Amino acid sequence: MTIPDLSQLDAADPLAHKREAFELPADTIYLDGNSLGAMPKAVPARLHEVVTGEWAQHLIRSWTRNAEAAQDWMALPDRVSVKIARLIGARPDEVAVGDSTSVNTFKVLAAAVRMNAQRPVLLTDAENFPTDLYVTQGLNALLGGTLEIRRVPADEIAAHPEQHLTPEVGVLLLTEVDYRTGRKLDMGQITAQAQAQGILTVWDLAHSAGAFAVDLNGCHADFAIGCGYKFLNGGPGAPAFLFVAQRHHDAAPSFLSGWMGHADPFEMAREYVPAPGARRYVVGTPQVLGLSALDTALDVFADVDLGQLRAKSLSLTDTFIALMEPLTGQYPLELVTPLDHEQRGSQVSYRHPQAQQVMKKLIERGIIGDFRTPDILRFGFTPLYHSHADVGRAVEGIRSVLEQTK
Amino acid sequence: MTIPDLSQLDAADPLAHKREAFELPADTIYLDGNSLGAMPKAVPARLHEVVTGEWAQHLIRSWTRNAEAAQDWMALPDRVSVKIARLIGARPDEVAVGDSTSVNTFKVLAAAVRMNAQRPVLLTDAENFPTDLYVTQGLNALLGGTLEIRRVPADEIAAHPEQHLTPEVGVLLLTEVDYRTGRKLDMGQITAQAQAQGILTVWDLAHSAGAFAVDLNGCHADFAIGCGYKFLNGGPGAPAFLFVAQRHHDAAPSFLSGWMGHADPFEMAREYVPAPGARRYVVGTPQVLGLSALDTALDVFADVDLGQLRAKSLSLTDTFIALMEPLTGQYPLELVTPLDHEQRGSQVSYRHPQAQQVMKKLIERGIIGDFRTPDILRFGFTPLYHSHADVGRAVEGIRSVLEQTK
Repeated sequence: MTIPDLSQLDAADPLAHKREAFELPADTIYLDGNSLGAMPKAVPARLHEVVTGEWAQHLIRSWTRNAEAAQDWMALPDRVSVKIARLIGARPDEVAVGDSTSVNTFKVLAAAVRMNAQRPVLLTDAENFPTDLYVTQGLNALLGGTLEIRRVPADEIAAHPEQHLTPEVGVLLLTEVDYRTGRKLDMGQITAQAQAQGILTVWDLAHSAGAFAVDLNGCHADFAIGCGYKFLNGGPGAPAFLFVAQRHHDAAPSFLSGWMGHADPFEMAREYVPAPGARRYVVGTPQVLGLSALDTALDVFADVDLGQLRAKSLSLTDTFIALMEPLTGQYPLELVTPLDHEQRGSQVSYRHPQAQQVMKKLIERGIIGDFRTPDILRFGFTPLYHSHADVGRAVEGIRSVLEQTK
Repeated sequence: MTIPDLSQLDAADPLAHKREAFELPADTIYLDGNSLGAMPKAVPARLHEVVTGEWAQHLIRSWTRNAEAAQDWMALPDRVSVKIARLIGARPDEVAVGDSTSVNTFKVLAAAVRMNAQRPVLLTDAENFPTDLYVTQGLNALLGGTLEIRRVPADEIAAHPEQHLTPEVGVLLLTEVDYRTGRKLDMGQITAQAQAQGILTVWDLAHSAGAFAVDLNGCHADFAIGCGYKFLNGGPGAPAFLFVAQRHHDAAPSFLSGWMGHADPFEMAREYVPAPGARRYVVGTPQVLGLSALDTALDVFADVDLGQLRAKSLSLTDTFIALMEPLTGQYPLELVTPLDHEQRGSQVSYRHPQAQQVMKKLIERGIIGDFRTPDILRFGFTPLYHSHADVGRAVEGIRSVLEQTK
């Protein structure tokens, strides 16, 4: 690998101006936007208006105020869905925004399991993010243990689909980008292989949405879920989203059936009649504060070319890997993120025997990444607010900490 | 009834100073705090600090920052639980805060149904708030229709418990205060009658918590759920809460099992191990913005004597009923809220054949109540921010609108 010219890369960066849209603390290189995205500068003013204007002054009327312009709180989940839909290759009516990723995972898994009820196996990645695994366990417990939760490493499923995508499997739950290694699966290929065997797919896009262009409909995906507070920068505990392909809208049940997913909430009918499309997966009263922050945060993406977003993400991670490469020879550092662009998300991770201690020292120096048990150093790159110069400074800091930790 | 002396009542009101804690629009009498509570003045500054300080500057570190003082985001749901527990007669570890009321209803109903699995009937009020009914339907659909959802008017259940609290009933779901009529059930008596028959109770406290002192443990309640945005003033779509009695902590399953309800979330274990107590019902990543607003809103209650809160609520509704009484003779207005204090929440409702039109005109005059289909005029009274003078002005406006509507 050649040492890249950082200033030249930054000078040619068409997204460099986007950094101005974010508030970032001084003396910090924040490489943890895949855990909590940085704050878009427009958020505080929006929240102030929501609480002092919409809530304090207009009070209950805000639920229906300006409904003709779709600016009412009732339509807020749908307004956010429109913005997320563009980033994930979906139609707006295929997306529902609200609740947490975990709760949304429950909703779509329960629907998918029911739609393929004659097949008892729910197949998932043995190394999946814990909440995905826990949700499969809770759902199965509620269903009286009638499912078999089968856990196989995702790389093994991808390598030998003929062994794992078998007729007893009803639902396949995978996370597109692994939260530790940053390894990106081929969503289109695996979806096609699964569907050829009659399997419904559920894709967790926690580390995908907002990091690069996702193309759910291009991949003919069935269901997906994703997170509002990582690369979408919606704030701590931001509302999450889910996706249900239009072809499933008639058949997909909504078992978490609340009044805001009813076809006519204020009719106050006794019988649940699901709203059309994904809106039926909006359950209780929408969390207006969190939705408003996320709504404003998504405006940063409005004029972003998603091809440029991906190109910059790869340029940042390529640069980081290249600058780190000499260190892997000097220190007990092992790259676990794929070099192949097709298999890489927007993070780079290394194993190190003292990873927890190394990350603690890095954070003390203002280089904020993440430690993931047992031995992973994780560095997330957000193409909207990182420069190649940031990458260079981060590697200098890492070198210094590794030297101290020897 | 005698006409009360409003200024004398206000002069003797020990909670009169609490009005200063709320922002209320000028030229408005807001009688809809049972739909969306008014904004406590301290909320905007708290939210500003959360977004510009905790989020923007401390970023991911806020999840564990100041953990030794329990001021970390991880402990935020528990901090709010402590404040709600005092208002509902619960221990802090019996309360979990987060998600919506609808989602929490699903959680506790699923647990209760499983704990009494040999009894197939889930009994609820035929006139219950729609989302309670819808959640029973969704849960039953997920369980393959193995439950019988039996709907009987709550007044009929209360009048003839021996006919309805029968051995095939496993779970009884009731709302303590009816959202249309304001009728309050005897939670202690009904709970005892149900438990004597081996039935688990789930109480919906949407129109109770923050309106008057609820005493869940005094009533020996099993499960409860409640709303953060009505009398708790937590803001639009605020996080909701649930209650699980301590004696059920070992047996109550958490089927919506997410990583934040795990005994050790950052262990990232593959197997779900529930956290102790009600914390296991915290599912996904806590919604920090909504929780922070609710946390600050609850501080208004910190020095409030809950006996005084109830006394003032009854004084406000008594006053309203007394002043409205002459109008019921002149206009087609029928009081549907019980006169008996023991049977009254913190609202007063009337039937009127043109209720929707009357409420529309009232709102145009700045008297904001609620229309509830088909013919209910609903007026909510919040003892923390209403005066008896407000009640007098509201009745004058209602008189004028009724005269126009004749």
